[in-house]
Amino acid sequence: MSVHNEMKIFAGSSGKQFAERICSYLHMSLGSSEAITFSDGNTFVRIKENVRGTDVYLVQPIGLSPNNEFVEILFWIDAFKRASANSVTVVIPYFGYAKGDKKDEPRVSIRARVCADAIETAGVDRIIMMDLHAPQIQGFFKKPVDHLIALPLLSEYIKAQGIENFVIVSPDAGFAKQARKFSSYLGVSTVIGDKRRTGHDENPETLELIGEVNGKNAIIVDDFSTSGGTLIDLSHLLKRKGALSIFACLSHLLLSPQAVERIEASPIEYVISTDSVENHAVNHTAKIRIISAAPLFGEAIRRIYMHQSVSGLFEGLPPEVLEFDGL
Amino acid sequence: MSVHNEMKIFAGSSGKQFAERICSYLHMSLGSSEAITFSDGNTFVRIKENVRGTDVYLVQPIGLSPNNEFVEILFWIDAFKRASANSVTVVIPYFGYAKGDKKDEPRVSIRARVCADAIETAGVDRIIMMDLHAPQIQGFFKKPVDHLIALPLLSEYIKAQGIENFVIVSPDAGFAKQARKFSSYLGVSTVIGDKRRTGHDENPETLELIGEVNGKNAIIVDDFSTSGGTLIDLSHLLKRKGALSIFACLSHLLLSPQAVERIEASPIEYVISTDSVENHAVNHTAKIRIISAAPLFGEAIRRIYMHQSVSGLFEGLPPEVLEFDGL
Amino acid sequence: MSVHNEMKIFAGSSGKQFAERICSYLHMSLGSSEAITFSDGNTFVRIKENVRGTDVYLVQPIGLSPNNEFVEILFWIDAFKRASANSVTVVIPYFGYAKGDKKDEPRVSIRARVCADAIETAGVDRIIMMDLHAPQIQGFFKKPVDHLIALPLLSEYIKAQGIENFVIVSPDAGFAKQARKFSSYLGVSTVIGDKRRTGHDENPETLELIGEVNGKNAIIVDDFSTSGGTLIDLSHLLKRKGALSIFACLSHLLLSPQAVERIEASPIEYVISTDSVENHAVNHTAKIRIISAAPLFGEAIRRIYMHQSVSGLFEGLPPEVLEFDGL
Amino acid sequence: MSVHNEMKIFAGSSGKQFAERICSYLHMSLGSSEAITFSDGNTFVRIKENVRGTDVYLVQPIGLSPNNEFVEILFWIDAFKRASANSVTVVIPYFGYAKGDKKDEPRVSIRARVCADAIETAGVDRIIMMDLHAPQIQGFFKKPVDHLIALPLLSEYIKAQGIENFVIVSPDAGFAKQARKFSSYLGVSTVIGDKRRTGHDENPETLELIGEVNGKNAIIVDDFSTSGGTLIDLSHLLKRKGALSIFACLSHLLLSPQAVERIEASPIEYVISTDSVENHAVNHTAKIRIISAAPLFGEAIRRIYMHQSVSGLFEGLPPEVLEFDGL
Amino acid sequence: MSVHNEMKIFAGSSGKQFAERICSYLHMSLGSSEAITFSDGNTFVRIKENVRGTDVYLVQPIGLSPNNEFVEILFWIDAFKRASANSVTVVIPYFGYAKGDKKDEPRVSIRARVCADAIETAGVDRIIMMDLHAPQIQGFFKKPVDHLIALPLLSEYIKAQGIENFVIVSPDAGFAKQARKFSSYLGVSTVIGDKRRTGHDENPETLELIGEVNGKNAIIVDDFSTSGGTLIDLSHLLKRKGALSIFACLSHLLLSPQAVERIEASPIEYVISTDSVENHAVNHTAKIRIISAAPLFGEAIRRIYMHQSVSGLFEGLPPEVLEFDGL
Amino acid sequence: MSVHNEMKIFAGSSGKQFAERICSYLHMSLGSSEAITFSDGNTFVRIKENVRGTDVYLVQPIGLSPNNEFVEILFWIDAFKRASANSVTVVIPYFGYAKGDKKDEPRVSIRARVCADAIETAGVDRIIMMDLHAPQIQGFFKKPVDHLIALPLLSEYIKAQGIENFVIVSPDAGFAKQARKFSSYLGVSTVIGDKRRTGHDENPETLELIGEVNGKNAIIVDDFSTSGGTLIDLSHLLKRKGALSIFACLSHLLLSPQAVERIEASPIEYVISTDSVENHAVNHTAKIRIISAAPLFGEAIRRIYMHQSVSGLFEGLPPEVLEFDGL
Repeated sequence: MSVHNEMKIFAGSSGKQFAERICSYLHMSLGSSEAITFSDGNTFVRIKENVRGTDVYLVQPIGLSPNNEFVEILFWIDAFKRASANSVTVVIPYFGYAKGDKKDEPRVSIRARVCADAIETAGVDRIIMMDLHAPQIQGFFKKPVDHLIALPLLSEYIKAQGIENFVIVSPDAGFAKQARKFSSYLGVSTVIGDKRRTGHDENPETLELIGEVNGKNAIIVDDFSTSGGTLIDLSHLLKRKGALSIFACLSHLLLSPQAVERIEASPIEYVISTDSVENHAVNHTAKIRIISAAPLFGEAIRRIYMHQSVSGLFEGLPPEVLEFDGL
Repeated sequence: MSVHNEMKIFAGSSGKQFAERICSYLHMSLGSSEAITFSDGNTFVRIKENVRGTDVYLVQPIGLSPNNEFVEILFWIDAFKRASANSVTVVIPYFGYAKGDKKDEPRVSIRARVCADAIETAGVDRIIMMDLHAPQIQGFFKKPVDHLIALPLLSEYIKAQGIENFVIVSPDAGFAKQARKFSSYLGVSTVIGDKRRTGHDENPETLELIGEVNGKNAIIVDDFSTSGGTLIDLSHLLKRKGALSIFACLSHLLLSPQAVERIEASPIEYVISTDSVENHAVNHTAKIRIISAAPLFGEAIRRIYMHQSVSGLFEGLPPEVLEFDGL
Repeated sequence: MSVHNEMKIFAGSSGKQFAERICSYLHMSLGSSEAITFSDGNTFVRIKENVRGTDVYLVQPIGLSPNNEFVEILFWIDAFKRASANSVTVVIPYFGYAKGDKKDEPRVSIRARVCADAIETAGVDRIIMMDLHAPQIQGFFKKPVDHLIALPLLSEYIKAQGIENFVIVSPDAGFAKQARKFSSYLGVSTVIGDKRRTGHDENPETLELIGEVNGKNAIIVDDFSTSGGTLIDLSHLLKRKGALSIFACLSHLLLSPQAVERIEASPIEYVISTDSVENHAVNHTAKIRIISAAPLFGEAIRRIYMHQSVSGLFEGLPPEVLEFDGL
Repeated sequence: MSVHNEMKIFAGSSGKQFAERICSYLHMSLGSSEAITFSDGNTFVRIKENVRGTDVYLVQPIGLSPNNEFVEILFWIDAFKRASANSVTVVIPYFGYAKGDKKDEPRVSIRARVCADAIETAGVDRIIMMDLHAPQIQGFFKKPVDHLIALPLLSEYIKAQGIENFVIVSPDAGFAKQARKFSSYLGVSTVIGDKRRTGHDENPETLELIGEVNGKNAIIVDDFSTSGGTLIDLSHLLKRKGALSIFACLSHLLLSPQAVERIEASPIEYVISTDSVENHAVNHTAKIRIISAAPLFGEAIRRIYMHQSVSGLFEGLPPEVLEFDGL
Repeated sequence: MSVHNEMKIFAGSSGKQFAERICSYLHMSLGSSEAITFSDGNTFVRIKENVRGTDVYLVQPIGLSPNNEFVEILFWIDAFKRASANSVTVVIPYFGYAKGDKKDEPRVSIRARVCADAIETAGVDRIIMMDLHAPQIQGFFKKPVDHLIALPLLSEYIKAQGIENFVIVSPDAGFAKQARKFSSYLGVSTVIGDKRRTGHDENPETLELIGEVNGKNAIIVDDFSTSGGTLIDLSHLLKRKGALSIFACLSHLLLSPQAVERIEASPIEYVISTDSVENHAVNHTAKIRIISAAPLFGEAIRRIYMHQSVSGLFEGLPPEVLEFDGL
Repeated sequence: MSVHNEMKIFAGSSGKQFAERICSYLHMSLGSSEAITFSDGNTFVRIKENVRGTDVYLVQPIGLSPNNEFVEILFWIDAFKRASANSVTVVIPYFGYAKGDKKDEPRVSIRARVCADAIETAGVDRIIMMDLHAPQIQGFFKKPVDHLIALPLLSEYIKAQGIENFVIVSPDAGFAKQARKFSSYLGVSTVIGDKRRTGHDENPETLELIGEVNGKNAIIVDDFSTSGGTLIDLSHLLKRKGALSIFACLSHLLLSPQAVERIEASPIEYVISTDSVENHAVNHTAKIRIISAAPLFGEAIRRIYMHQSVSGLFEGLPPEVLEFDGL
C-alpha cells in the first residue's frame, strides 16, 4: 500500500494563472496565501491556511521580474518549512537565471548555481522545471529536479496545424541538437543557421543556412526569446532564400510589448509557445499562440504524488528525442 | 609584525556614492566593476580587475530596490570568491530586510535569516552594517558582523546646531531604550510617545506623551522612516503639547518623493540622517540634512584591515550608550 | 487520509515532572529512559525501549543547571537519531540561554545561537518553547520552532482570582509591549517602571512610574525572575506610591531558596507562574502559585501530531495579544 | 606588499610525470610522498615531509584508472588538511568524470557533481583543470576552479608544422563552437560533420560534411578520444570527399594500445595532443605527437601563487576564442 | 498503526549474490539495475525501474576492488536520490576501508572518515554493516548505522561441528576482547597470542601463547584475513605447542587464490567465514566453509522496515558478548 | 619567508594554571579574559583585549566539571570568531568525553562525536589534545587534531627515579598495546592483568596476571583514573603475587578527594601523572607526583606557530612507541 500526505498547491505572485491551470487539471483548489510588496520595495509572504504535514507545491516562474520572483521563492520556502509543511516542491516553469550557467568570461558569477544554492539553503525538497537552458543545471542542485520537456506538446500542436512540406530551422549550431529532436519527432529535415567566415576577410560573419529551404515552409525552433531579434533576422533570411511561410516555436516567451510589435511587423506567420512565463504582452496579438504547459506540470505533480514515474510521461517518444533532456 | 593582503573596495549598483566616499576617506581608488540589468530583468555582475589574494570590500545597501540589491550582493560574492579573492566583506550600510526578524504572525518567513543564510551560502567572510533594527540580527549570521552605530555622529551634529533647552522624543516604548542613549549622550531628558488605553472604552488607542515638552525644543529620534507618517503625526502632537521647534534624527532615510513633500509641509524644522541609503529623493530639500556615515565605515574598514579594534571606534562613550548595540 | 507514525514522549533529567504532566494530558505513558551522571561528572543517556520509526518528543527545560541540561539534550538527540527515530522534537519549556541573544558588549558570544546550532547539528527536527526572551530567537533556528505563549493561561488565572480595580505594571520600557498585551487581554491600564534622569546630576537613575497606581491593586508582569530583586524593589515603590495589594505574574521562575525567602518577606501578596522550570525551591511557600503549562504543551503536541494548526490554540485572542509572539 | 606562504607540489600516483614537468618549469623539487595499493586493493597515501602552513598543489589526473585515481585524491586532500597545510589545490589535468555532467536518461547519477561534492567535502581549497567537457562543470564546484585552455598551445604547434591550405573539421554540431575557435585562431574555415536524415527513409543517419574539403588538408579537432573510432571513421569520409592529408588535434588522449594500432592503420597522418593523461600506450608511435601542457599549468600555478591573473595567461587571444571557456 | 513505504532491494556490481540471498530470505525480487564499466574505466550506474517514494536498500560490499566498489556506491546513492527514492540505505557487509580508522603515523589520511563523509554527502540515509574493524567507526557517520554481529552465526556453526575439548585462540592482545566473547558464548577458555620481549636482546619479538593448548583442539578467531599469513603462522605454533586439530573462524574473507593455496597446505583443518565479500577464490576448496550472513542482513532489513528493534536480533546473548559491539 | 599572524593564548575557567605554564614556557603573557557563572548557572565569557587577525589558543581541559567546561569552550570559540580572530585553536589537555566513543549498547549516544560536531560547528580551526582514550577519536573531527603523547615525559621521569628490576603492568588486555610502548621505551617486560574464566563455573571472572612479578618492582600504567579502584585492586594482587614496590603512572588524573585517601591507604608507593586536569585534590599528598605537560603543549604550539613539524617533537622514539598514537 502506498501512503500519502495531503498535498496543497500555492502560487507565488508571478505564478497565479499557471497555478490555477494546474489546479484545474488536478480538480483541486489553490491554497490561500498572499505576497505583498511594501512601499519600500520589501517583499512579504503569508500563508493563509494550515499546512502542517502537507506536501506543498509552490508555483512561481522566475520570469520578467526575476529578482523579485526569486527572492519571493526563498521567503515562501522558509515560510512553508517554518509552518511545518512535510515537504516543499518549487515549481519553476521558467527559470530565468538558467542562462547564467558558466563563467564565459573572467571574474563573473555562475548565477544559476548561486540561485540553486540559495533555494536549497532555504530548505526546498524538490524542484520541477521545464526545458532548462542547459541540462547540466540539474547538477547545480543536490535535491531532485523533475525536468519536463515541452517538445511533444509543441510538436503535436504543429502537427495539428496541417502545415505541409516544412523543415525545422535551428538558429545556430548550438541549438542544432535540440532542433533535430523536433525534426525526428515530426519526420522532417533540419536546416541550421550558421555564422561562418572563410578566411581573413573584413566582414567575417555572415549568417548562412546549412540545408535547403527554397519552396518549403520553415519552422524556427529555439528555447526562449526576449527581444525577438534572432527570430526576425532569421525570418528575413529565410524569405530571401525562398522559404514559403515561416513559423517559430519556442519553449519560453519573454517578449516585451515592443518585441511583440516587431514580430507583428515581421514575415513570421505566428509564434507558438507556452505559458511558462506570466507575460501579459503576448496575450493580445494573433501572431502569438500560447499552449498551456500547465496540464503537463499538473500530470507531473500527480505522478510525483502517486509515486509514479515522471519520465513515464514521455514514454513512447523515440530515444533520440529524450536524449540529454535530463528527465 | 602584522601582515596584510592587499585590500580593494568595490561598489554594487546601489552603493556607488557611498563607496566613493569611503575611498575618499581612505585615499584609495574604487575598484573597477560593473553591474548590468538585462532587458529581461536579469542582473549580471563583472569584476574588471584582478582580485586574486586580495581582501575585497563590496559596498551595497539593501535599500529602495531591495530584491535587486540583495540578489546582486549574492552574485558579487560568488564572482569575487570564484575570482580567488582572499576574503569578501560585504558592507551593507542599510539592511532593508532587518525588519523581517521574527514570526510576528503565524506562517510567515523570518526574512532576515533567509537573507543571512543566502549571503553566507554565497561565501561571504564578514559583514559590516549600521544601526540594525534589532541587535539579535547579528545572531542570524555565523560570520562576524561589525555593527557600527551612527549615534555619536548624529549627536555631534545636533550639538553643533546649538539647539538649547531640548528633549529627545522616542516615538514609542519600543524605541525608548535607544532614545535614552541619545539623551544620555546629550545630557537631556527623554520623552516617550505612548499609545495607551485606560479601560474598555471605544477608542482605545490615543497617542500620549510621557514627559514634558511644553516650552521646549524637541528632537524625535528613530531608526528609519519610509513614509514619514510617524514623524509627522508626532510633530503635530508635540506642537499641540507646546513644543517649540521640532527636529527629527534618524539613522536611515527611505523617504519617497511624496514623503519628502509631506515632511516639507509638516511642523518639522528639518530631519537629520545619514547617507546609508542611496536616495535621490532627499537631496533637494532644505528640510533634510544628510551627514555622511562613509567616514565611519571607512575608519572601520581601516581598523579591520590593520587588525585594530572596531569597538575602539566608540571608546570613551558612556557604557549606557554602547549597551546592547552589538559592537 | 492523514497518516501518522507512532509518537513517544521521553523526559530528560530536568523534565521528568513536566513530561509526566504532558503524558497525563495526552493519556500516554512516558517512554522508558535514563540519564546518569558519572562520578567524574560525565553525562550518559540511554533509551530503554525501541523507538524505530517513531516521532519522539524529548522534554527537558534548560533551567537551573543549564550546562548539564543543555549537553544532555545534545546526547539525547544523538541517541534518538542513531536509534532510528523518525523525528526528534525537543520540548524546552524554559530555554535558559535565550538571554544570550546579542552582542551587548564587544567580544562576547551570542550564546543562544551557539546553543541553537549545536542542537541542530546534533540532529533535531523541531523545537517547542514558550515565552522566549526575544522573538528573534526563533530565527536562530532553521528548524521549525513552535513558540507557545503562557499569557492566556496566566491571565485566566488572574481573572479567576476576582481581583478588582487593578493595573498591569511593567518593570521597564523594554517589557512594556508584552505588558500591554496583558492589559489588553484583561481590559485594564498599563503602568511602566522607568529609570529616568533629568540632566547631568550625580544620581542620574531613579525608578519612576509612568501611570497611576494610587488606590489600585497592581500586578507586576515579567518574563522570568532569578533573584526576585526587580520584583521586590518594584513592590516597595508601588507601596510608596499608594498601591493596595501587589501581585506578580511571570512566565518562568528560577528563584533560589534565598530568593523565595526574600519574596516571602516582601510586600508582594503572591507570585503566579508556570512549571516551565523544575524548581523545588518554589513548591513550599504559599506566596508562590504554580500553574502547569503542561496541558498547553500537551495540546500543542497533540496538534503537531494530528497536523492541526498550533497557532489555532490561540485563536480568538485579540491580534494585539498575538502580535510579535512568534507563533 | 604581497605576502605568500611556502608552496609545495606533490604528485599522486597518476600524476608523477606531469608534476615533474611542472616542477621543472618552476625550478622546484617535487614534494616527497607515496601512494601504495595494498594486496586487498586498498589505497594508502603518506606525505613524507612537513607541510604545515604551506600551500599544497597535488597533481593527479583522473584518467585511465579513474576510480582509483579519484579516491586517491580524496585521501590526499584529507592527509594534507590533517597535516595542517594552509591550503590544498588539486591539479586535475584531465577530469575523467566530466562526461557524467547531466541526467541524459531517467534514473542515472550526475557523476561529475558527485565527484565535485566528495572532493569539496574532503576539504579542497581550489581546483585547476583543463578543457572540461562542458563549461558548466565549473558550477558543480563551490570552490574556485581555474580552467585552462589548451587551444593556443595546440594551435601554435599546428602553425609550426607549416601545413598549408587546410580546414578545421568538427566531428559534429555539438563541438562546432569549439572548432570555430580553432578556425578563428588559425584564420581558416570550419567544416562540420553532420549526422543527417531527410525524411522517413530506412537508413536515416548518414554522416555528411557541411563545408568543402576537396583538395584541402583537414585537421579534425575534438576534446578527447578513447577508442579513436570517431576520428578514424571521419578520416575515411574525409579521404572519400577528396581531402589531402588528414590530422587530428585533441586535448586529452585516453587511447588504449588497440586504439593506437587502429590509428596507425588509418588515413590519419598523426594526432596532436597533450600529456594531460599519463598514458603509456601513446608514447611509442610516430603517429602521435604529445605536447606537454605542464608549462601551462606551471605558469598558472606561478600566477596563482603570485596573486596574478590566470586569465591574463590568455590575453591577446581574440574574444571569440575565450568565450565560454570558463576562465 | 505503523505505516510503511514500499521497499526495494538493489545490488551493486559486487553485491549481486549477497543481495539475491537477502531477497530469497525476504521472498522478494531483486530490483532491476545495472552498473557498467566503460572502456576508459569510468563507472556508470542505471536504475531500471521506478523507485519514487520507495525505501531503497543497495547491497554492495567494499571488498576486493574497493575503490571501484566505493565510487559505485556514491553514484548509486546519487542516482536513487535524484530518482526520488524516499530513503537510501546502503548495505555494506564488508567495509574495506574500516582499517583506515586512525592516524597511526604522521601525515596520513583517516580513510574510513573520508569514505563516511563522501557517502553521507552523496545523500545516504542509513548504513548497515557487520563486524567493523573498530566500533568507533560508527561514530564516523552521523547517519544511523545498524551494526550486525556474525558471532552467534559463526558460534552456532562451531557448536554444530561437535568439536570437543577446544579453546578459542586470539592472534594477539588487540583481538582478545573479541575472542573472549566467542569463549563466553561457547563456554570455553581463551588463549592469546603474544608478541613479547624480555629485555634488550637482539631478537626482541617472539610469538608466545598465553594459556594452554597442549592436547586441545584450537579455534583461531579474527575479524578478517587477506594473505592468511597470521593464521598459518599461528597454526604452526599451535601444532608445536601440542594442539590437536586447528580451525579458524573469521568474519570476512579476502583471501587471494594464492592465500587459499597456502591455507590448503597449512595445518589448519578448515576456515569458517561468511559471504560478506564476494570472493570467488574461496569457493572451490574443502578447507573453507562459507556460512551466509544474508539471512542475518535480511532479518535486519525486515526489522528496520517493520520498525522493530534490530538489537533485538541479538537478545538473549550474554551482555559480555554484546558489549562494545556498537548495536 | 614564512609569515605569521600574531599569536595569543587565553585560558578558560578550568585551564588557568595550565595556560599560565604554557605561557611561561613560551615567555608570553596570558591573554585577558573572564568566564562568569551567573546565579542561574548560565555561563558567560568575555574577551578583554583585541584579537582581530590573531591566532588564538584557548586552553581548557574537559575534566571534573565536564559539561560546564565543554559548553564554555563553545562560547569561547564563538566569541573569538565573532571578535575576528584569524583562527581559534582549542587546547584540551584532557577531553573527558573521549570515553563516549562508541555505541557499546543499544540506543545510546556517541558522545565524543556529538562534542566534536558541536565544537566544529562553533567554528574551531584546530584542536590539540593528549593521550586520547582511543586514537579513532581524531577521526570524529574534520579539523586537524594535534595529538600529543605523554609517554616520553612520564617514562623519562620513571627513568630518573632509578627504580631497578621492574616490570610494566597493564591492568587489562585492552591497554596492553599501550603498556608495551612503555616497556619498549624503558627496555623492560610487560605483565598483563587478565580477567579470565576456564569453563562454566560459578565465579567466572578472576583477575590473573600474565607474566611474572615475583621479586620485581611493578609500575602499573593506564590512561586515566577516576576512583582509583582498578589501581588499588591491582596493587593488592601484585603484592600477593610477590611484587616488591608498586607504582602507577597515568596520563590523566581525575581522582576525587576520597579516591586520593584510598590511594594513600593502598600499597601503591606513589602515582605519577600530569597536570592535564586542573584537580586540586591531588596537590596535597606525597603519594601523587604531578609532572607538567605544559612545556610539551607549549612546544607544540610554538611549532604549530612556526610551521614546524609537531610529530618531530617525538622524533627518535622507536617506531613501535609512536605506532597508533595519532600524531
